[in-house]
Amino acid sequence: MPVGGYGEVFPNSRKVYITGSRPDIRVPMREIVLEAKHADGSPRTLRVYDTSGPYTDPNARIELGRGLPPLRRAWILERGDVEMADRTRPALRAKPGRAVTQMYYAKQGIITPEMEFAALREGVDPDFVRQEVARGRAIIPANINHPESEPMVIGRHFHVKINANIGNSAVRASVAEEVAKMRWATLWGADTVMDLSTGRDIRTTREWILRHAPVPVGTVPIYEALEKVGGRPEELTWEVYRDTLVEQAEQGVDYVTIHAGVLLRYIPLTEKRVTGIVSRGGSIIAAWCLAHHEENFLYTHFAEICEILRAYDVAISLGDGLRPGSIADANDDAQFAELETLGELTRIAWQHDVQVMVEGPGHIPLHMIQENVERQMAVCQEAPFYTLGPLVTDIAPGYDHITSAIGAALIGWFGTAMLCYVTPKEHLGLPDKDDVREGVIAYKIAAHAADLAKGHPRARAWDDALSEARFAFRWRDQFNLSLHPQRAIAYHDATLPAEAAKTAHFCSMCGPKFCSMRITQDLRAYAAARGLTLTDAVQAGMAEKAAEFRAHGGRV
Amino acid sequence: MPVGGYGEVFPNSRKVYITGSRPDIRVPMREIVLEAKHADGSPRTLRVYDTSGPYTDPNARIELGRGLPPLRRAWILERGDVEMADRTRPALRAKPGRAVTQMYYAKQGIITPEMEFAALREGVDPDFVRQEVARGRAIIPANINHPESEPMVIGRHFHVKINANIGNSAVRASVAEEVAKMRWATLWGADTVMDLSTGRDIRTTREWILRHAPVPVGTVPIYEALEKVGGRPEELTWEVYRDTLVEQAEQGVDYVTIHAGVLLRYIPLTEKRVTGIVSRGGSIIAAWCLAHHEENFLYTHFAEICEILRAYDVAISLGDGLRPGSIADANDDAQFAELETLGELTRIAWQHDVQVMVEGPGHIPLHMIQENVERQMAVCQEAPFYTLGPLVTDIAPGYDHITSAIGAALIGWFGTAMLCYVTPKEHLGLPDKDDVREGVIAYKIAAHAADLAKGHPRARAWDDALSEARFAFRWRDQFNLSLHPQRAIAYHDATLPAEAAKTAHFCSMCGPKFCSMRITQDLRAYAAARGLTLTDAVQAGMAEKAAEFRAHGGRV
Repeated sequence: MPVGGYGEVFPNSRKVYITGSRPDIRVPMREIVLEAKHADGSPRTLRVYDTSGPYTDPNARIELGRGLPPLRRAWILERGDVEMADRTRPALRAKPGRAVTQMYYAKQGIITPEMEFAALREGVDPDFVRQEVARGRAIIPANINHPESEPMVIGRHFHVKINANIGNSAVRASVAEEVAKMRWATLWGADTVMDLSTGRDIRTTREWILRHAPVPVGTVPIYEALEKVGGRPEELTWEVYRDTLVEQAEQGVDYVTIHAGVLLRYIPLTEKRVTGIVSRGGSIIAAWCLAHHEENFLYTHFAEICEILRAYDVAISLGDGLRPGSIADANDDAQFAELETLGELTRIAWQHDVQVMVEGPGHIPLHMIQENVERQMAVCQEAPFYTLGPLVTDIAPGYDHITSAIGAALIGWFGTAMLCYVTPKEHLGLPDKDDVREGVIAYKIAAHAADLAKGHPRARAWDDALSEARFAFRWRDQFNLSLHPQRAIAYHDATLPAEAAKTAHFCSMCGPKFCSMRITQDLRAYAAARGLTLTDAVQAGMAEKAAEFRAHGGRV
Repeated sequence: MPVGGYGEVFPNSRKVYITGSRPDIRVPMREIVLEAKHADGSPRTLRVYDTSGPYTDPNARIELGRGLPPLRRAWILERGDVEMADRTRPALRAKPGRAVTQMYYAKQGIITPEMEFAALREGVDPDFVRQEVARGRAIIPANINHPESEPMVIGRHFHVKINANIGNSAVRASVAEEVAKMRWATLWGADTVMDLSTGRDIRTTREWILRHAPVPVGTVPIYEALEKVGGRPEELTWEVYRDTLVEQAEQGVDYVTIHAGVLLRYIPLTEKRVTGIVSRGGSIIAAWCLAHHEENFLYTHFAEICEILRAYDVAISLGDGLRPGSIADANDDAQFAELETLGELTRIAWQHDVQVMVEGPGHIPLHMIQENVERQMAVCQEAPFYTLGPLVTDIAPGYDHITSAIGAALIGWFGTAMLCYVTPKEHLGLPDKDDVREGVIAYKIAAHAADLAKGHPRARAWDDALSEARFAFRWRDQFNLSLHPQRAIAYHDATLPAEAAKTAHFCSMCGPKFCSMRITQDLRAYAAARGLTLTDAVQAGMAEKAAEFRAHGGRV
């Protein structure tokens, strides 16, 4: 994995920064330097959104194990609304009675450095970001105890974002491996990571990930709470959960999935399902509710949860504990009943100035996807939607990055703000590094396709740059502009490894005689050599010239 | 590659046949035998559409090199409308003045064995197939000189089909390799193959493919015609093309791509494009038109082409020579101008009782896909649409099976009848065997997702069978029901290789404590053990039982 540059992963890429209204707002971009030149001889470049953090900056001093520099520390402290939490570790929290959330500031009309930073990444006006955050249509997950993170905005008027799940399970565990996986995921383009660890060392793993993460980190706190009670759902209590939430907030977790919409009365709605409850959090809560015959404590204590989170600016990701786990169960009563409650909880969170997004499925056939987005927008008043896939068929385990990238592209186009990736190992086992990369790339494709369809002003330039390189047979530019340059090169070189093939006007797919793009270029060149456009050449009645051309050797 | 069964590729699968109205109509299906049992102890099974041909039949006698048995020979001869063509090789053609196309028979009200065979594969009424073929909304590509092929129907009221391109280019050539690639593609699920060879031995390669192909074979005859004139487009003539077409028809090619819609006046419309003309055939015709300043000879001779093809029942695939090759060029004037001409040509083909489908792009962003289908249906009066992808972004060479599977799923749902696959090597080089499999599987996913969305009556059973296996922790059934069992097994075994894990109630993704489906099952079992449904359990007010349950050890 590169440190100090993009290395082999992104050849000819370099880190650049855009400086904002103050010198400490420096927004990273990856600049791809092309072989194509401007008229003055300088190389053409394309700047793309960069999630890889300081690791790819040759000037950054990073010691693995010591964490990233606290980019946002000054911004957080200068607002004067935080104090040290009364804990053994030096964590910040809001002064009593204060809200320190980006939503709170936005409602006050304040454009924070976080908002400006995110706006520069998107290429939009900072006040537009503020407005979207104020009305709850976008969130900036930015815990005051995670100053290492580079601010980003999640909302449907911005780039569609992707999340990569990492974390170990009891079956496999290594802290260093998970940090490496986080860096790997963000290098390829993950906008946030969720640490879904459930095994030993859950707290240490999270600490390492947070201190090294240049992106917002999400968790599902009930996993850690469950570990604390020996893995027995019925022994969970509000107190254990609350303490876990505070600990994670003080560690710096930027958003937490909370399955507060799984109500006791909804559980029977899953009875006839083909795959029952497939959310881990949802099933834990259902087990607790049924054991106690009590209402979900996350629901009954939701206002207290909001009070805690507003003191750290932890965003809520309202979990869809009753999401469908198969095509058969899509858009059923259980799913939509829970959604109504998520709408109610969204309003409560907003009353507390807590930022909130809403999770969605899962497994949905193509024709039922749009209803999910429309209902979510209506019920949750356009709070950002954050979906897992969805997978559009169940028949392809081993390829669920593809089955779900199809659904993700579609749901992103319809307005989903963030897509949770699915790796090829989904349903089968824990992903390794290759799986993480394949999952991220499939979702970069889906998110970018959605950006194109939504008309994001910066999306088209990338496609055009690559297609221009393709048409001009600038093979190296075509490789370097792709999402995975090494793979593009390897595939090309599998049949034409010679150096000369990198400038050849064909590839092995069609061979030299049948390259349509070469023929097109020749046609244009033929007309141009005669001072004509193709239009002129056709309209002027070119019988003579055609004869002359044939006599001339006949090469078009 | 298996001969005599599905072997390692599809464990627990066996070949079965459904017999139609006469004993020689035997329709193959692949039957997956599950570990799950019926109440009487017999194993449950799922039958799926099978394109692999006799190679996977343990009772078939096949000698590679000698070709497949001529399944349809008797049906073709008993109609009494063919005679031996006056050629050195024993090819059939229609008696003078006779049409031998499935469209002609359908219009006469005749249900041919081919129609019945295709109907049984789809699970629909044979007369419905006849009606769809008669009105041109579906085709059955079935050259009378390719009696080895198993009839299938392409139309939007049937399963969405997929085509795999094979064939060598001048850069790489091996006849045996191409036959192996054809068998490989159909084993994984390709419904037709196109032989796009352009190199040496083009005729021999095609002969071998045809004699061994259980699926319809398509070609682009202008490639061979171009070889005959030394690769110089301007030296092409109608006579060379016509002779090539007749030769291919007599060899048994089932459908041919003809770029008859590339008119001289449309060529200038490509002038400002980012990627010009990207269809090989389109660029060849454009070069010819410009060199001669004459109208495309495929257009001016189109009625003669139809006369030839109706004597063999070769279907026309109207090529989209001006399809867009980049997001920038999608849905432009050149593309839609050509489409108008394809509509005109469709009507001419139908007047000759020639079956026709219409090719479509290519590269289209998500929001512009639907317009393609709607316009094609309107202009071409619902003749089957056959699209290449489309790719929904240009930025991912090396992953264009994914960028295009997204577009393919969507366009299939909207009504496209057949999807031409794209392999991971697209834009980079010739696909090898692994690429062919990856391309076919990505397109099986897209086609099946479209079938689900369109409500094909047989689609859901497959998803449900797999999801039921997943929920019941029948791991082997889950693997065997998947599109690529070996990969699913390998991914599972990467972290849990032990034999016991094949029946374990969890996998390494969540580990034993956090398996939501296990918890759901426990919940249901808990209620069932008390003679209750979950609904009863919740509604009856279970405080007592909950207490008893906790006292009982507390395991939910």
